[in-house]
Amino acid sequence: MRKLTPDSLAISEEPHPIGVFDSGIGGLTVAAALRQLLPGEDIFYIGDTARVPYGGKSATTIQRYSREISDLLLAESAKIIVVACNTASALGVPRLKETLHVPVIGVIQPGAEAAVRATQNGRIGVIGTRGTIASEAYQRAIYALDAKVTVSSQSCPILVPLIEEGWIDDPISDAVIERYLEKFVSNGIDTLVLGCTHYPLMREAIQRFVGPGITLVDSAANCALAVRDLLQEKGLFAPVNHRGNLRVAATDATDGFLRVAEKALGIDVGEVELRTVRGGS
Amino acid sequence: MRKLTPDSLAISEEPHPIGVFDSGIGGLTVAAALRQLLPGEDIFYIGDTARVPYGGKSATTIQRYSREISDLLLAESAKIIVVACNTASALGVPRLKETLHVPVIGVIQPGAEAAVRATQNGRIGVIGTRGTIASEAYQRAIYALDAKVTVSSQSCPILVPLIEEGWIDDPISDAVIERYLEKFVSNGIDTLVLGCTHYPLMREAIQRFVGPGITLVDSAANCALAVRDLLQEKGLFAPVNHRGNLRVAATDATDGFLRVAEKALGIDVGEVELRTVRGGS
Repeated sequence: MRKLTPDSLAISEEPHPIGVFDSGIGGLTVAAALRQLLPGEDIFYIGDTARVPYGGKSATTIQRYSREISDLLLAESAKIIVVACNTASALGVPRLKETLHVPVIGVIQPGAEAAVRATQNGRIGVIGTRGTIASEAYQRAIYALDAKVTVSSQSCPILVPLIEEGWIDDPISDAVIERYLEKFVSNGIDTLVLGCTHYPLMREAIQRFVGPGITLVDSAANCALAVRDLLQEKGLFAPVNHRGNLRVAATDATDGFLRVAEKALGIDVGEVELRTVRGGS
Repeated sequence: MRKLTPDSLAISEEPHPIGVFDSGIGGLTVAAALRQLLPGEDIFYIGDTARVPYGGKSATTIQRYSREISDLLLAESAKIIVVACNTASALGVPRLKETLHVPVIGVIQPGAEAAVRATQNGRIGVIGTRGTIASEAYQRAIYALDAKVTVSSQSCPILVPLIEEGWIDDPISDAVIERYLEKFVSNGIDTLVLGCTHYPLMREAIQRFVGPGITLVDSAANCALAVRDLLQEKGLFAPVNHRGNLRVAATDATDGFLRVAEKALGIDVGEVELRTVRGGS
């Protein structure tokens, strides 16, 4: 990544960060998992809060947004782009991989691999936004790994607003979870992929409804493991003994959900920087 | 609006439309009210579905989006701009009025006037998105009309996603309505402003919870009345005997909610045209 010239040596104290983006601040679940797993890495996180959510928008629009936000991360010298948003992973990652000069990793492939490892009866359920579910990206990734499993899926558009409202441990959320998930339980799945980076914040309520017999696959935690493997493979780890930090930016002033996420994740986000997206919208 | 030159005479068969915009397709409630009240008017409606919702975003961002979408309506030769979105009315209309060369009308002022007319005990409640409620635009408009009334307000972020999911007559929505509105009922309001253009679609469930003693003020219907008055005042009515039509555009491909809205409103939207917003985002 870095040439050893006198100029670059002068700034070599500052390692290149892992660039992470999400449509909003749900992807902080991925940032939190990365902080825990890779405390030596700097992380620059940006949420596209001016255009959140991505979940119901078209593939063309998601691809454009993903590229524009990635450019903001490259402007921060990101050494790798982590797409911490299932919708953008489903619809935007293939194009980003073709066009960017740094490695790109999404949350779909690591989640699919973890689900295939976890299932014992070969029946996997997937929940996510309308965009993620309509893309069938998890299904394709899972079938490519193991053609014998069966995958059923369900879009859950109300879960994100409930989480952002802070109604995380709440009878209304329990009723919504029951409405969306009851068919999975009767279908006999043994593994459920939380295919949206917001959902780990509601993990306990989901586990309570589906019962202990169903393994929840957290796409955030599995994405962090895949990032570690990729950094290792590419020789991109930060210098030993570097103490990593987390910087958070957004494309619009954020509201209370940031504090909900901070509290639920136990991370300190500090001051959020504002960035403007280049390009039309 | 139109000079009588040979060129313009050639196109004078085509009256200038009423331009209507919303962050998404909730503002179709305003378009439906306009169709009913002013069947001779052409309406060009655009929903900024590429960046929906506006409800949780900052004033600066809403002002920029409002201007960009208004420019799309001006490109369609709109004779008047109707801001059929409470958030954009609260945060964007003052700036638009200063800068555009056509009349601009929002939903806040007509709603505030209707609420002041309706209340008998001087206690008014307002519900809306986070952005609308935080702006206190309804409170200011109502106090300017009558300083003696008291206004209480509540943001209801989950209602729009519930409506867009089609859970309109549903026990989960009833529980959410109860959670948000119970304080109003115990506060003794006699008038409740539905300060979001989605909410008329859930009017029956809201009325059922608050009971017949509370008058609901529908900002969509009152906005249509204000548009009629403004067209009259400015001499901008379409020619007598013109049969109006409705064209609908969006900045991103729309999903199932459009059909929910069509069904609930009993209007035929037809083919939705795609438009790209100029300017950065």
